[in-house]
Amino acid sequence: MPKKFERKPKKKLSVDDYTKGILEGNRIILSQAITLIESTKTAHQEIAQQIIEQCLPHTNQSIRIGITGTPGVGKSTFIEALGNYLTDQERKLTVLAIDPSSQVSKGSILGDKTRMTNLSTNKNAFIRPSPAGNSLGGVARKTRETIILCEAAGYDTIIVETVGVGQSEIAVHSMVDFFLLLLLPGAGDELQGIKRGIVEMADLIAVNKADGDRITLAKQAKRSYKNALHLYPIKESKWTPKVLTCSALDNIGIGNIWKTIVEYQTHAKENDFFAYNRKRQAHYWLHESIQAQLKQRFYNDETIKNTLTSIEKSVNDNRISPFKAAQDLINSFLKR
Amino acid sequence: MPKKFERKPKKKLSVDDYTKGILEGNRIILSQAITLIESTKTAHQEIAQQIIEQCLPHTNQSIRIGITGTPGVGKSTFIEALGNYLTDQERKLTVLAIDPSSQVSKGSILGDKTRMTNLSTNKNAFIRPSPAGNSLGGVARKTRETIILCEAAGYDTIIVETVGVGQSEIAVHSMVDFFLLLLLPGAGDELQGIKRGIVEMADLIAVNKADGDRITLAKQAKRSYKNALHLYPIKESKWTPKVLTCSALDNIGIGNIWKTIVEYQTHAKENDFFAYNRKRQAHYWLHESIQAQLKQRFYNDETIKNTLTSIEKSVNDNRISPFKAAQDLINSFLKR
Repeated sequence: MPKKFERKPKKKLSVDDYTKGILEGNRIILSQAITLIESTKTAHQEIAQQIIEQCLPHTNQSIRIGITGTPGVGKSTFIEALGNYLTDQERKLTVLAIDPSSQVSKGSILGDKTRMTNLSTNKNAFIRPSPAGNSLGGVARKTRETIILCEAAGYDTIIVETVGVGQSEIAVHSMVDFFLLLLLPGAGDELQGIKRGIVEMADLIAVNKADGDRITLAKQAKRSYKNALHLYPIKESKWTPKVLTCSALDNIGIGNIWKTIVEYQTHAKENDFFAYNRKRQAHYWLHESIQAQLKQRFYNDETIKNTLTSIEKSVNDNRISPFKAAQDLINSFLKR
Repeated sequence: MPKKFERKPKKKLSVDDYTKGILEGNRIILSQAITLIESTKTAHQEIAQQIIEQCLPHTNQSIRIGITGTPGVGKSTFIEALGNYLTDQERKLTVLAIDPSSQVSKGSILGDKTRMTNLSTNKNAFIRPSPAGNSLGGVARKTRETIILCEAAGYDTIIVETVGVGQSEIAVHSMVDFFLLLLLPGAGDELQGIKRGIVEMADLIAVNKADGDRITLAKQAKRSYKNALHLYPIKESKWTPKVLTCSALDNIGIGNIWKTIVEYQTHAKENDFFAYNRKRQAHYWLHESIQAQLKQRFYNDETIKNTLTSIEKSVNDNRISPFKAAQDLINSFLKR
């Protein structure tokens, strides 16, 4: 029964209990608090918000890194290699994920702990799968809130990974300090196939799988990506994006990548972009939260709960337009 | 001064004037009404909603087609070819667009009328660029509402195009009857690189640029895409997705594509999926509208307008968390 001993007794924790546990680095309490963030129940949400509020002063001493790349680029192996490198350096690492495809396929293709077998048993690494949700915005918000709790628990390096090429990167970009794009050697002429917006976000392009027969190809890819980057406008951070090669599988070039991230951090702190960017992100998240909470209050309202089904039926039967029906519902919600 | 004669005098139109003009097929009034939909002003929005409401009974006699494909696949040329084919058959065509990248780049890469030089001067084709907006949801809602007005104006074939591989396709899929995925010959082994969710949505894959040297390659691609489609689950519509080749440039295979769309329509009307799907979409749009309107009411509220700036400052200065600040604002909004 070793499992049983690991768990806390199931007594109800207070907000202070949660915060205390998190600040002490208790992983079980941290996990439970994240579960509250992910819950759709109002009571859970309220506790979660209070915990976040108490944890907030203990954050901001971290580096937050977004990692993206198309499926097959070797993201899990890369994160495992980088993660092991970092924990060897006494850093404490959190790996979170935002998976937009879970909305379509109703199942996360990311976030399975079994992907990172080594890292998931590492005491200094905390891995949490992508939260479920009906919208990318909701999923992203939960991840943003989770970052705060993890930082308060002492994790100084936050990795947020995502797959897919588009909206999810925008969401991740809105919560990280540094954006890393993983590419394959020879997977296309220069940056063809990668959306311009994603390349513009990248602070570092790492050409992975630079091993075996692919070393020459990877070097060529590095050169051509580097040339392509010249065509992009200067970044607001004044940082010149770097291009490096690595092999996560053979553990080559990982230290170099970390060195570049640290260089960026120094650069961005010196010219104040680092702090400016975090403020701007907070602003963005204020407005994201407003929308999320408005929605939650609406759907949890008793009058709305009682009338929604019949109005949905009218809309389905084409007796009223979706837009007009929404207007009527909102009028009744706001009138009281 | 011929321009002047084309325009209506700048008197203020009533809701009935707008509806009458739209039902008569007046393109200028249709354009003006769409501009009201795209406006963020409450007064404009209110008029727009009334126009939509009046137009609603005159819709539903159309076919709505979503078209997607990565940049370089030749979407504009394809839509021009298909559009000219359809107007030759006495159909009336609307081309709308949803462009997710305009959110990042602050400028639409789609929707420029100059892209479709022939079609844009065709009396039976109405082309409207992608609306601007802060969120994909907002942009999509405006496009959905625009469809209603266009259908009321007598356009029986609605094309909604999008670029990008992900969220925007989900939005387009939520407003069309038929989903067409354009691919290039030899652009990858089978369906590699195209996200599974997008392929699952496709009712037809058209391999474009099947001309010149690429004919053999296109035929190979067709075969391999066809094989790949076998691995996908049966669609809810019970329709078996087709794979065709075409050359928009040389105007080859366009008729065949249209034939397939008509076949689908017959199939889906016979088994009632067509109507069922539109009902389901209306349901989806009810909830999208609720969220959009809640947001609009919030930001247009006088109390919120007066306090928002100072709260934004507190958030920027890290004196309050974005989540707690949002909660406080919403409490004050809902209390009155």
